[in-house]
Amino acid sequence: MSAQALKELFIKELQDTYSSETQIMEALPKMAEAASSQQLKQAFQTHIQETQGQIQRLDQVFQMLKADPGGNTCEATQGLVEEAEEIMGEGLAPEVLDVALIMAAQKVEHYEIAAYGSLRTLAETCGMTDVARLLEETLEEEKATDQKLNQLAEGDVNMRAFKAA
Amino acid sequence: MSAQALKELFIKELQDTYSSETQIMEALPKMAEAASSQQLKQAFQTHIQETQGQIQRLDQVFQMLKADPGGNTCEATQGLVEEAEEIMGEGLAPEVLDVALIMAAQKVEHYEIAAYGSLRTLAETCGMTDVARLLEETLEEEKATDQKLNQLAEGDVNMRAFKAA
Repeated sequence: MSAQALKELFIKELQDTYSSETQIMEALPKMAEAASSQQLKQAFQTHIQETQGQIQRLDQVFQMLKADPGGNTCEATQGLVEEAEEIMGEGLAPEVLDVALIMAAQKVEHYEIAAYGSLRTLAETCGMTDVARLLEETLEEEKATDQKLNQLAEGDVNMRAFKAA
Repeated sequence: MSAQALKELFIKELQDTYSSETQIMEALPKMAEAASSQQLKQAFQTHIQETQGQIQRLDQVFQMLKADPGGNTCEATQGLVEEAEEIMGEGLAPEVLDVALIMAAQKVEHYEIAAYGSLRTLAETCGMTDVARLLEETLEEEKATDQKLNQLAEGDVNMRAFKAA
């Protein structure tokens, strides 16, 4: 009975993550549009394509578990996206906005890293090896995106904002 | 002028993080109370003490920058805390609730890891070495807490929930 309750928790978290990804999918094109650094714009565009693949993987997991994505809204992601949208509406100088966009995007990435990390570990506990493998693929992509954003901030974007007249 | 705008962004993010920590400080005792695993309860209690120290570090940074914590509410953390509170209200079996509490706590930790990581990097860009050092201390604590929660999930908590009758 508790293994069943654990599976229900797993599916609820999976639905939450699905809502998170679909909200991010809507926000990313606006963030790509708002970025002035070409490297940052490119990073967001690459992540749009990755996110499409991540949503497909989640669809695949729902099919494997004979569950559906449901219609709930992930409130935490809603808060993260609202913060990103506020930042874009504040009329910041383009170089400073790039810094703020990276900050907002890294918060989103870390949300996803936490979500996929927990789901992957729980899938392993429940013996769902194939599901764990799919979630692990996405987890590695999210970590790589976070690292890419780190590199952009440390490499060029922050300093450009600092030096901008 | 843009360096000024960058400093304003830094302070805004710092205020956001202050709001985040104070919200977490309210949520953690409830999470410690709700946990049934003694190790998890202990991990939350340890993190309450750490969070107090982290808030003091933020106070110190505000003083160094002659700024104040402000009164804004971090919406993303609000969403994260609401999710944690919902989970605690769902009447889950104690072992399953422990799994859910770790998931919720790791999302909070990753929010903090992203926030302090960005703030630390930006402090370095702006030449605020002492501020960067303080933020780095907190960042390392948040990463260690996340790792501790990983160990609890992988070591015992998930499997107890899976095996519970």
